[in-house]
Amino acid sequence: MTETVLRADAMLTPGGVVVDAELAFDADGRITYAGSARPESIANLDGAHPGAPRFESVSGVHETGVPAHSGRVTHDLTGHVLMPGLVNGHTHSAMTLLRGVSDDEGFMPWLAAVQALEQHLTHEDVEVGLQLAMVEMIETGTIAFADMYHWDEPLIELVRSAGMRAMVALASFAPEAVGFPGVSSWNGAEATEQTEALAERYAGDAQIRIAYGPHAPYTCPPDFLRDIAARAIERGIPIHTHISESAAEVAQITEQYGATPAAHLDALGFFEADVLAAHCVHLTESEIELFAATGTAVSHNPVSNLKLGNGIAALPAWQRAGLRISLGTDSVASNNTLDLFEEIKTGTILHRGAHQDASIVRAADMLEIATRRGAEAIGFPDSGALEVGRLADVIALDVAGSSATPLDLAAEPGALVSHLGFGATGADVRHVFVGGRHIYADGEHLTLDAPAIRARAAQARARLRAAAGGAGAGAA
Amino acid sequence: MTETVLRADAMLTPGGVVVDAELAFDADGRITYAGSARPESIANLDGAHPGAPRFESVSGVHETGVPAHSGRVTHDLTGHVLMPGLVNGHTHSAMTLLRGVSDDEGFMPWLAAVQALEQHLTHEDVEVGLQLAMVEMIETGTIAFADMYHWDEPLIELVRSAGMRAMVALASFAPEAVGFPGVSSWNGAEATEQTEALAERYAGDAQIRIAYGPHAPYTCPPDFLRDIAARAIERGIPIHTHISESAAEVAQITEQYGATPAAHLDALGFFEADVLAAHCVHLTESEIELFAATGTAVSHNPVSNLKLGNGIAALPAWQRAGLRISLGTDSVASNNTLDLFEEIKTGTILHRGAHQDASIVRAADMLEIATRRGAEAIGFPDSGALEVGRLADVIALDVAGSSATPLDLAAEPGALVSHLGFGATGADVRHVFVGGRHIYADGEHLTLDAPAIRARAAQARARLRAAAGGAGAGAA
Repeated sequence: MTETVLRADAMLTPGGVVVDAELAFDADGRITYAGSARPESIANLDGAHPGAPRFESVSGVHETGVPAHSGRVTHDLTGHVLMPGLVNGHTHSAMTLLRGVSDDEGFMPWLAAVQALEQHLTHEDVEVGLQLAMVEMIETGTIAFADMYHWDEPLIELVRSAGMRAMVALASFAPEAVGFPGVSSWNGAEATEQTEALAERYAGDAQIRIAYGPHAPYTCPPDFLRDIAARAIERGIPIHTHISESAAEVAQITEQYGATPAAHLDALGFFEADVLAAHCVHLTESEIELFAATGTAVSHNPVSNLKLGNGIAALPAWQRAGLRISLGTDSVASNNTLDLFEEIKTGTILHRGAHQDASIVRAADMLEIATRRGAEAIGFPDSGALEVGRLADVIALDVAGSSATPLDLAAEPGALVSHLGFGATGADVRHVFVGGRHIYADGEHLTLDAPAIRARAAQARARLRAAAGGAGAGAA
Repeated sequence: MTETVLRADAMLTPGGVVVDAELAFDADGRITYAGSARPESIANLDGAHPGAPRFESVSGVHETGVPAHSGRVTHDLTGHVLMPGLVNGHTHSAMTLLRGVSDDEGFMPWLAAVQALEQHLTHEDVEVGLQLAMVEMIETGTIAFADMYHWDEPLIELVRSAGMRAMVALASFAPEAVGFPGVSSWNGAEATEQTEALAERYAGDAQIRIAYGPHAPYTCPPDFLRDIAARAIERGIPIHTHISESAAEVAQITEQYGATPAAHLDALGFFEADVLAAHCVHLTESEIELFAATGTAVSHNPVSNLKLGNGIAALPAWQRAGLRISLGTDSVASNNTLDLFEEIKTGTILHRGAHQDASIVRAADMLEIATRRGAEAIGFPDSGALEVGRLADVIALDVAGSSATPLDLAAEPGALVSHLGFGATGADVRHVFVGGRHIYADGEHLTLDAPAIRARAAQARARLRAAAGGAGAGAA
């Protein structure tokens, strides 16, 4: 069976940083070796490039021929480092079309401006928005994402063909809601039915996991939420929702139901299901305890929470309570990019500043949250770490640039964690493999036609702007 | 006289966003035109590329021949946008060699770890560290910086030949301090003398401004600070210092002198001089009023302040008080990059989150602080804005990439502010002009040998690590 081998300057593994590293995986996309370079791989590399120095290529990928005796394909990634592909724990991919809309507005007016445009979305818009998001995610090293938006089988097939993994939730609102007619009703009952059909259709799929997507406690009435929870428990389908994103939400729910949002949901039996709760900026201490006791997963979205003026989530308290934590960008409409390296850095330093304690969150913590812990939280527990038996979901970053200099990994292996946490950006990502499939090679997409997608996205935005009467970015 | 013309998709000017834009400057590097594309430039472009579509080149620079009748060089920067070059209001450039050192330490232990390595710096180390910093700054769009470190004439000449602008301050400590023997004494009295000689040598230089650099109130005794202030006032030399960076500093100064740091310095006559105060995380309200009354300039360093656990400065209060504000990265040892676009985004969203108010700082505010206001604060008032009569300190960013899509500037000019504030990164910068001199062209350095500098920096780090007994990044 053909084995693929990646050779790189260093690699981030659960056991620490390995220098002069090698990662190998089989045709099923499972890791078969993760450690120091093996002599036979070096020999193979020599054979493939006779007479060439072994580690001189800085940016190139050399797909060597496959010698009969070994059945091995070797990628010489000298000048690069390997780490697990990143996991985006909360986004609304197709909203790439709304990038830059209402940039200086607070949460509730921003939401109104966004929804005024969303009313005019067509199915084709959602397709191209999703594809643009995948282009950007892949370019910046993300291999899996938890999404809540409009979804159906054709859209899910776009994710499968792009080679990514996704936990897909159909956003749904109150059953009486009209929804966005251009794409389909976001009517709760209909979304519930579609969700369950999709969950059946994609049961056991390695790339796709289906979740219910009740939008939030302030947009979904109690009966609807109670019903979703009961169904989720019965069918073993997870729920992806927003909880306690803004102080306004907490005030509204508390006034309406006499309980803070998570406590309100708890009374509806919500957390007996497998829940992924985005934002959670304003959780109370007892709500954090509740999440710990129920194994509820959270998604930390520091950039979105800051930009929309929603506040600073209590990540250190979540860590102490042992919550299941992922890291998310939210949509680009509140970010404005999908580069998780930015989120890793902001998510690390923000709490250090807010608590005036530089040890309260470390780069290594946030890298784990953005990979292994995030993958577990969104339902891909075999992803997220470079170790034997796991999925070969791996990215390679160029470390030859100025912002990575000096970086002598042989002498200071720990500097890799520092660089990935505080120095690297999505622009450094050169290769992406998902389940062993090479989907981004030396800066070129192998599964998506990026220039065509960017052109179609520009056209979609123009159409959307015209349909909404000229509204757009910077208009506010 | 030869005129240089830049044509781009759009341009950020004090009067707003100009689409289909043109910037022209003369041989002295002064802007002669900033506005919509002029017909004669289009004609010139046609002449230069006969038969070629006018605006199809995405990344190329076409240095056209110089027709005798016009004496004009035109750069077709289609697919790019223009903005003023960025100004770094506080850094220690040569500390690029210490990138990633002691990443998870609080301020005082971090400072000790850094200084343990700095003891072993040679003059050559400082040279290569400075050059690496300039490589990184230019690549990410910074054209001027306020620096405090070891400086002398050969180091300053490196800045001049690289084509950047700098406000240069010799870091100085108590007169009795031993200093770092490898580079020169950082003895206060000696630094004072050198500063004054350099100020005389570079008086009137367009690229260089000299400042005193008393390190901080907790490293310099009152008599020394009083003397510096008196000299600064007498000679008209500005002062660059650190004030109220950490709570530990405030506690120490308050205990030692019975006053908070800025109040303590005020009692020494400090703010009658022209002062640039970095960090100011813990200024009191009356200290903010003092800075407003004395015209004291501050430098906001949000990433460093967060990463070191120092806290969140009261930028919105500074804004309300009308302070002179610049934006800084601090050294890479507490950041870990020199990319001011990251600082712009963090500096905007941080305060929105901390105050739970999305309108409290806008992208446009922070872009002004990072350009015009920063340039004014560090002594280059003719830089920082694209308008006639100012210096042609201008950068071009590629906007063809995924994270800039969709971006229809003709229909939504305001989207440029949104993109530059929240979406762009240093990796998008393709061209840098300083005083009209083209120092970075389509991603290539024209004044610095970047690969050689990166290689020398790696060697310097190895030597430094060996001299310090093996300490380095990730060792803590």
